[in-house]
Amino acid sequence: MNSAASVPPSAPAQAQRKPLRALDDALAELLAAAQPLTASHRVPLAQADGCVLAHDVVAQLDVPGFDNASVDGYALSTNDAAAALSSGLPQSARIPAGHFSGPLVSGSVARIFTGAPLPSHANAVVMQEDCELVKTDAPGGGLVRLQQAPTAGQNIRLRGEDIACGQVVVAKGTRLTPAHLGLLASIGQAQVEVLKPVRVALLSTGDELVMPGTVAPDALPPGAIFSSNGFFLSTLLKRLGAEVTELAIVADTLAETTAALQQAASAHDVVLSTGGVSVGEEDHVKPAVQSLGSLDLWALAIKPGKPFAYGRIHRAGASAGVGQSADFAHFVGLPGNPVSSFVTFVVLVRPFIDALLGVARAGVQAQPMTAHFNWPKPDKRREFLRVKRNAQGGLDLYPNQSSGVLTSVAWADGFVDNPPGQVIAQGDTVSFWPMSQCM
Amino acid sequence: MNSAASVPPSAPAQAQRKPLRALDDALAELLAAAQPLTASHRVPLAQADGCVLAHDVVAQLDVPGFDNASVDGYALSTNDAAAALSSGLPQSARIPAGHFSGPLVSGSVARIFTGAPLPSHANAVVMQEDCELVKTDAPGGGLVRLQQAPTAGQNIRLRGEDIACGQVVVAKGTRLTPAHLGLLASIGQAQVEVLKPVRVALLSTGDELVMPGTVAPDALPPGAIFSSNGFFLSTLLKRLGAEVTELAIVADTLAETTAALQQAASAHDVVLSTGGVSVGEEDHVKPAVQSLGSLDLWALAIKPGKPFAYGRIHRAGASAGVGQSADFAHFVGLPGNPVSSFVTFVVLVRPFIDALLGVARAGVQAQPMTAHFNWPKPDKRREFLRVKRNAQGGLDLYPNQSSGVLTSVAWADGFVDNPPGQVIAQGDTVSFWPMSQCM
Repeated sequence: MNSAASVPPSAPAQAQRKPLRALDDALAELLAAAQPLTASHRVPLAQADGCVLAHDVVAQLDVPGFDNASVDGYALSTNDAAAALSSGLPQSARIPAGHFSGPLVSGSVARIFTGAPLPSHANAVVMQEDCELVKTDAPGGGLVRLQQAPTAGQNIRLRGEDIACGQVVVAKGTRLTPAHLGLLASIGQAQVEVLKPVRVALLSTGDELVMPGTVAPDALPPGAIFSSNGFFLSTLLKRLGAEVTELAIVADTLAETTAALQQAASAHDVVLSTGGVSVGEEDHVKPAVQSLGSLDLWALAIKPGKPFAYGRIHRAGASAGVGQSADFAHFVGLPGNPVSSFVTFVVLVRPFIDALLGVARAGVQAQPMTAHFNWPKPDKRREFLRVKRNAQGGLDLYPNQSSGVLTSVAWADGFVDNPPGQVIAQGDTVSFWPMSQCM
Repeated sequence: MNSAASVPPSAPAQAQRKPLRALDDALAELLAAAQPLTASHRVPLAQADGCVLAHDVVAQLDVPGFDNASVDGYALSTNDAAAALSSGLPQSARIPAGHFSGPLVSGSVARIFTGAPLPSHANAVVMQEDCELVKTDAPGGGLVRLQQAPTAGQNIRLRGEDIACGQVVVAKGTRLTPAHLGLLASIGQAQVEVLKPVRVALLSTGDELVMPGTVAPDALPPGAIFSSNGFFLSTLLKRLGAEVTELAIVADTLAETTAALQQAASAHDVVLSTGGVSVGEEDHVKPAVQSLGSLDLWALAIKPGKPFAYGRIHRAGASAGVGQSADFAHFVGLPGNPVSSFVTFVVLVRPFIDALLGVARAGVQAQPMTAHFNWPKPDKRREFLRVKRNAQGGLDLYPNQSSGVLTSVAWADGFVDNPPGQVIAQGDTVSFWPMSQCM
């Protein structure tokens, strides 16, 4: 045995230390690979929350459609201000919302309610709280007297003030929010043309995985663990509007894995797998993807989240003329450690899914915060530390930052984005990513 | 007419200037009125995103359930470090994830993969990238040589490191996120007991309202507007997990309005109306709620969003003994102006819905930002200005801050929470509420 000679690394210890790839470079490469999907369909407005608009929506009317009162009160002409302030003016009309009246009679006021059309010849509305009613002997009696001089235009919403006819109200590629839905309703849109959801097949790999519910927690076989990544990944995907198919854990042979992946690629835009992308892992997914298309294994310069894979699975029978997006499905491989899987989803998969829909998502808006913890031994990779805001306005660190400890993510309300090799001392300013922007 | 005498305000100009109520006082009063609902049901874990946990969930196992490798590499005992560093050690076993092996043979290493159980007698795992394979003449040949000394415990995840058996993993009253779902899966929970959704009946009032889709935008009758508040309110409610019923616009008589409200109250926890809560507005909802229970009209010291109503609608036939929450439905009336409606939803209804589910939601975490605008004429009320972050890291103001202009909310990515009477000059630090925390 002592006659051994040192040789270059070879199997099974052949794994070369891959050069680390900066996150921003990896993201740029991934986004460049994401040709936008274009298939769209019409959906009822009430079901369009989170959908991505397929075309610009142009207003076909002014909003508001007519000058109207923004408060409950009295409409008048400022020409009559002097009389209104001294003796008061009689009420000549009453205009509820939804009703048009004729022109305002000169020398009078009209009782008017919020949203009701301003009568012509009126140019101001005075809040009822700023008026007093003056009793008279006249029939139908009463004069309305102002407490201060009205100014032209006061408490009036002008026609087209919110939206002008012909204007683009919401642009193509916008991911719709509740406010957009309200805005689209206000211009009379009952349906909207939106991109069809990204179809994602989700695959959890690993011999050790057992689905929750198939065995009682206290009867889990030795060496097994409950499958958990699929639960948060599918939920994160659904929050992005994706249509998710969870693939059954495939049989442990290369032939069956290959068949399952080819099947998934035919009906999905993205095949997302978790586990099995480390350099030396036992897994049939890697060779199967390689045999069906191409696969790059990346070592990301982030922690957690080093191993990551991107590839393409060609679709059987796809003709080259149909356009590239019809020829293949994207393959994305995330690490199996749950925190690594979560973080790589946030920093890479989320923007990738948006890019497939043509959404130019603004990156996470980091916010400077004060560390209320020490981090004396930083990694050489950029770190995403799980932290929570405390009552003193600083950040606490979850004590166990292991990538296997999903508790840290559930506990956290954000990440500290820590540059490579950066020591953190209590009181330092750090870059905080709020969790609300990450999912 | 000049014989008029000034009299105390009376109808129709009787509306007294109600004292303004500070937002924090209104919120405290509203939260105190929200007795938590307790009805719960079991749902599959994959459908529990956003649901509120009805009971503490306690782990019935350790996670991980066994000491295991956190990297692909070689397991060994640090007692054998000297030989491992000089000549190398033979490989005596191969342990994929999901498989248990016997104890490690002294003076050898075991090939081990991420997540695989650590064999007894091993106390360190060395990454494969830090090993070299040394060829020998021995059959099955090859020795594994380390490049640096291993330390006890390295690259090992210890049993129970994430979760200890018996520990509360997620507490009652937690609104579940994707990370919680992953965490619950990892302890073998396939279903969770969560509170039933809050049932909300949503009512848009106003004679001027027309539903989108019933007439073409360019054929909207004079004085009419498209109903829009219901679209964003129902979407915001659904994002909170509520079950929303949109009531048809009720016929314009007190009797029919009363019947509709009583019906809604019997099957819903909350009746939410928009429009009709200003002091002088023409509306049957107010007297109908008063006749069915009680109603307080508040003038909130915020802009937009002054008029607000809270009341209770007693349920027909409810017996006093069943518990107060069964006796009535809550009534919440929001202003009809869309921005006012949106803002009052964010600042009052959202925490109210959470309180009904026993969720102690942390308030919005305001963030100091720099104004890149001037605001020379602040209101005497606390203002919520619609703003957007710009590329220079400052905040831009939407030019039209009218409460009728929903465009401002769709455009904005947050609000400036501006104290009463506070002038803002370019460069001032203001309190920013990110929109991502508001919906």
